[in-house]
Amino acid sequence: MKRGFGSDNHSGVHPELLKSMLEANTGHAASYGTDEWTERANLAFKKHFGPKAESFFVFNGTAANVLSLRSLMRPFHSVFCSDVSHLHVDECAAPEFFTGGKLWVIPSKNGKLELSDVKAQFIRRGDQHFAQVKVLSLTQPTELGTVYSLDEVKAFCDWAHSQKIYVHIDGARLANACVSLGKNYQQITTDLGVDVVSFGGTKNGLMMGEAVVFLNSNLSEDFQYIRKQSAQLPSKTRFISAPFCTYLETDLWQDIAKHSLKMAQALFESVKNIPGVEVTQAVQSNAVFAKIPKAWVSPLKKERFFYVWDEQTFECRWMTSWDTQLEEIDSFTNKLKELSR
Amino acid sequence: MKRGFGSDNHSGVHPELLKSMLEANTGHAASYGTDEWTERANLAFKKHFGPKAESFFVFNGTAANVLSLRSLMRPFHSVFCSDVSHLHVDECAAPEFFTGGKLWVIPSKNGKLELSDVKAQFIRRGDQHFAQVKVLSLTQPTELGTVYSLDEVKAFCDWAHSQKIYVHIDGARLANACVSLGKNYQQITTDLGVDVVSFGGTKNGLMMGEAVVFLNSNLSEDFQYIRKQSAQLPSKTRFISAPFCTYLETDLWQDIAKHSLKMAQALFESVKNIPGVEVTQAVQSNAVFAKIPKAWVSPLKKERFFYVWDEQTFECRWMTSWDTQLEEIDSFTNKLKELSR
Amino acid sequence: MKRGFGSDNHSGVHPELLKSMLEANTGHAASYGTDEWTERANLAFKKHFGPKAESFFVFNGTAANVLSLRSLMRPFHSVFCSDVSHLHVDECAAPEFFTGGKLWVIPSKNGKLELSDVKAQFIRRGDQHFAQVKVLSLTQPTELGTVYSLDEVKAFCDWAHSQKIYVHIDGARLANACVSLGKNYQQITTDLGVDVVSFGGTKNGLMMGEAVVFLNSNLSEDFQYIRKQSAQLPSKTRFISAPFCTYLETDLWQDIAKHSLKMAQALFESVKNIPGVEVTQAVQSNAVFAKIPKAWVSPLKKERFFYVWDEQTFECRWMTSWDTQLEEIDSFTNKLKELSR
Amino acid sequence: MKRGFGSDNHSGVHPELLKSMLEANTGHAASYGTDEWTERANLAFKKHFGPKAESFFVFNGTAANVLSLRSLMRPFHSVFCSDVSHLHVDECAAPEFFTGGKLWVIPSKNGKLELSDVKAQFIRRGDQHFAQVKVLSLTQPTELGTVYSLDEVKAFCDWAHSQKIYVHIDGARLANACVSLGKNYQQITTDLGVDVVSFGGTKNGLMMGEAVVFLNSNLSEDFQYIRKQSAQLPSKTRFISAPFCTYLETDLWQDIAKHSLKMAQALFESVKNIPGVEVTQAVQSNAVFAKIPKAWVSPLKKERFFYVWDEQTFECRWMTSWDTQLEEIDSFTNKLKELSR
Repeated sequence: MKRGFGSDNHSGVHPELLKSMLEANTGHAASYGTDEWTERANLAFKKHFGPKAESFFVFNGTAANVLSLRSLMRPFHSVFCSDVSHLHVDECAAPEFFTGGKLWVIPSKNGKLELSDVKAQFIRRGDQHFAQVKVLSLTQPTELGTVYSLDEVKAFCDWAHSQKIYVHIDGARLANACVSLGKNYQQITTDLGVDVVSFGGTKNGLMMGEAVVFLNSNLSEDFQYIRKQSAQLPSKTRFISAPFCTYLETDLWQDIAKHSLKMAQALFESVKNIPGVEVTQAVQSNAVFAKIPKAWVSPLKKERFFYVWDEQTFECRWMTSWDTQLEEIDSFTNKLKELSR
Repeated sequence: MKRGFGSDNHSGVHPELLKSMLEANTGHAASYGTDEWTERANLAFKKHFGPKAESFFVFNGTAANVLSLRSLMRPFHSVFCSDVSHLHVDECAAPEFFTGGKLWVIPSKNGKLELSDVKAQFIRRGDQHFAQVKVLSLTQPTELGTVYSLDEVKAFCDWAHSQKIYVHIDGARLANACVSLGKNYQQITTDLGVDVVSFGGTKNGLMMGEAVVFLNSNLSEDFQYIRKQSAQLPSKTRFISAPFCTYLETDLWQDIAKHSLKMAQALFESVKNIPGVEVTQAVQSNAVFAKIPKAWVSPLKKERFFYVWDEQTFECRWMTSWDTQLEEIDSFTNKLKELSR
Repeated sequence: MKRGFGSDNHSGVHPELLKSMLEANTGHAASYGTDEWTERANLAFKKHFGPKAESFFVFNGTAANVLSLRSLMRPFHSVFCSDVSHLHVDECAAPEFFTGGKLWVIPSKNGKLELSDVKAQFIRRGDQHFAQVKVLSLTQPTELGTVYSLDEVKAFCDWAHSQKIYVHIDGARLANACVSLGKNYQQITTDLGVDVVSFGGTKNGLMMGEAVVFLNSNLSEDFQYIRKQSAQLPSKTRFISAPFCTYLETDLWQDIAKHSLKMAQALFESVKNIPGVEVTQAVQSNAVFAKIPKAWVSPLKKERFFYVWDEQTFECRWMTSWDTQLEEIDSFTNKLKELSR
Repeated sequence: MKRGFGSDNHSGVHPELLKSMLEANTGHAASYGTDEWTERANLAFKKHFGPKAESFFVFNGTAANVLSLRSLMRPFHSVFCSDVSHLHVDECAAPEFFTGGKLWVIPSKNGKLELSDVKAQFIRRGDQHFAQVKVLSLTQPTELGTVYSLDEVKAFCDWAHSQKIYVHIDGARLANACVSLGKNYQQITTDLGVDVVSFGGTKNGLMMGEAVVFLNSNLSEDFQYIRKQSAQLPSKTRFISAPFCTYLETDLWQDIAKHSLKMAQALFESVKNIPGVEVTQAVQSNAVFAKIPKAWVSPLKKERFFYVWDEQTFECRWMTSWDTQLEEIDSFTNKLKELSR
């Protein structure tokens, strides 16, 4: 498959991360998360998120999200999430299946929830006929590549905690938010009051694996059972944790995020003035969203693959990755210019 | 961790299989099971299990088992399984959680169910108060390293189908059963009437990944949704399917199984006559089960790690793997002899 | 509690229906739905809904709805329902809990779904990441007292079946729709293509009990297990089925519905011209919805209890019942006129 | 249906209890458990079980049991119960469905668990692969009509609490245990340390309805949501709570239980010496268990209906009720004697 802008999970594994897996392939190791690499990785998470952080590896992003929810709520609870959240539209009802509870969907603007909208939906407290909200889930960066400011996240956390609601962050690309905000992990999560993070690996250059990171550690007490019962306990865990060690113990996480964001900016700069292209979202992460004429979609996809985000408006998503190269941006831009003529 | 006989998942990744992952790390690939390696792997499964076989990768053995069950039953059904089955004693109630239904546990002999016992438990058909059995799950080889004969499996299938019950095989180590029986995969499953197999990778030298293989393909119709909803759809699937290609397109699966079984036989031969060691199970796969005096457990574990299978009787499980070497058997046997003196 | 317009479940049991329960209290009877009254009731349902109808009693409306869904879908499916549907806003996430699947909520107008809106939400067919819609649930009459026309229901059924979607009707007050439309049960359900009905008893003068009625009987095959597993199999079933016999074998169902609707019309006529009262919904069933000034709510509730439907707009629901009397309407109207002065 | 010994739910409603329902059928009442009868009933439960008792009505015994479990455990937990428990063999996998967790079945003797057997099964504490036991469920009286002594229950509670396990009692016929033991409700539950009771009504002369009674009230905090989500919140609750008021505010509960037990004793005395009849269980409640020759079953059932408990041994269950009369015992005994000749 030719390189394109389809998704950051079309990319392979970053060479440094692959190397760490090869190095971990030595002799025997304890299984099911009791190996030394997993212990090291947990320390790395503590370094980044604060000393109370407790991390648990799972296989993929769906799992990180739904297991986070399982740990925070019971079936008669509901979760506030946005109408474009991955939880709601891309998990084949996994949240409902795993939790037995309800997503309460709130309209978003540019991918982001607004606190006033959330408050307006905070209704019927104590009414036995109505599933009681227990978790607020934010995606950071959002599915539309936008980024919540620190003040926004803090305001959500403060309000949520005042109502005994937990805050979860779907951070499949959290590294990109860090770099975009110019802050470290602790500053954009723990320090603001976030309770649990789905921390992404796969979309950031790893082969597979994500972490559920509890920032408020007393919430993690039963998580080992939740993970096992949810079929998410990796057997040869070292091959998930070793690359996370490399990713988090060095600057690699930052380098990868910086590259992805730089490529998205470059793409944005190249296309923004092409007649017929209308960039629709602020480019704050590793994606450019833009509307193009319907007739362009097919020839442009042939040049470099991408997804149409909205089949009604032909808003498209062009996503960069750790391995995006300038020549891909060039050939793509050239094709756009050609179509624009 | 020193090499030992703890589990075949303490071993790392076989070099050939790791190589296939490195080779797959080239450029972009479609995600979520739509890549070319996955297509090739599906063909390999068809070659081994018959042209109607449909295979789906999942992350681990728990998942292969519980997703197989989800595809075969509804919550008001039950599953016949043995009292030592992994399903019953090692999945933290994952089968109950994912299916919403019931395991109906039947006593085993040497890890194996007997058809007469199963028939005796086939009761209250059509009684609305009683969960109706819909699946019979066999482990092959069993958790005690014993192997069902072809006749035994066929008799189970014939009876089950006559009662509209599906037959599932937990084949976390199915390659070992093939080699032990001197037959190919199709002969020990499809040809006998088995409906679905949990096909193991992780315990046979792969890094991670198992396959749910439908032999009776109309059962697989909705499986893509079941997998996604169960949080078991791998994103960069090529890194799971590429090693399966290597494993199944060559004789590697056989070589690995042969080595493991040979090592178990060697271990058996070395220990069987040591006074104080009582081998308890037929050595038909890659494990030796033996009772030893309680006082030996701790010093012996220090020499080479293993698990005590039964805390009452001190029946121990010594498990070989693709990477077991004769010197490990020697040092272990020497320690046993020393303790025996 | 003084009689009011709070809900049709604030009323007691109609004397004729209570009498049927007393008459059933004679000697011993088979339990768990195998008694003679239950058999008779099933015949009555066949008479009203057509010869293929199969009926099953459950305890309450939540159960009738969620068990209907359990019988029509699997967890990876979704259900189209309206944003004001009882399923979505008044069941404490019971649909998600019992089915493991998802409600896909569609905005309504005057309580009713529109087919064009439903079609617009029929997206991502065959996409494994997206819960596939399998059921369309309509409430008849709606939660706002409006009634779908026969043509509307038929159009929903025709489209749904063309897409392999089942149609469920939440008919907690279905008798009222019959009377409102001037048709019989078969004409407003079976003949239009409806698959399953939640048939209400409790809100229509019975003590308790609802029926799940399958109009397309091959769907009911496993329902006895679904009901038992869902804790909805009544033990002394005769006391639920006997009043249903009386209700359906005579004109009582019609008499009760006619009275309720007549009272709602009388209430509507009495209040519609009172300054400050704005009737907001067509009065097609046993409820009047009207906006009144906020300051009136408290004194008016003291006169006759009712619920505020919308806490933002002070749209109120005034609900009549089998036992509503003209004097209640008079005293309520008088109070309204007094407040209006 | 002719009166017989099939089940105490073949009987109708006790006249006094029916009368209380008629009296409650007056005017309007608040619904969903907020009426005055329900408040009174809760006070009656406090009187009988102690001031901390909190009671909640549900529709049937399956519900009382599974909702009790839902309130005490999470899906990764398991429940110790006996191999003859209603939970395990007569609920069509409802416990697994509602809790998502596991029943861990322990062999019983004469229907009773023994503490030593329970302790022997208390294994693998803290092992993430193994569902952790959280509830011990006892049936009192047992399904075989035997009764645990106070010392036995206390020993179970003491041990369970020392291991952070809750004790649940399936008390579908708890009144009979009270009378059998000559103690009051508090003495046989609260004072011994029991946490939650499924308190039966239906089998003791009521029309329908059971109560979940929390003796340790902080466990009941979320129960209103659990009940609603489980489709067990009665709408016109007064018709369930009013008869419970009568049942518990007077001596009626005791009178009914005494009569049932007296009839069982009378039956026992009449049959115990008939050649060919082997009484198999101590007659401590309202049932006689006895083996009879296979050939007798059919003619005897024609005289008075009953169930064969064990299809292998022809152990039969003869159950008395609030309405059992001596003439039924006489005709049954006469038939037995005739067969015995």
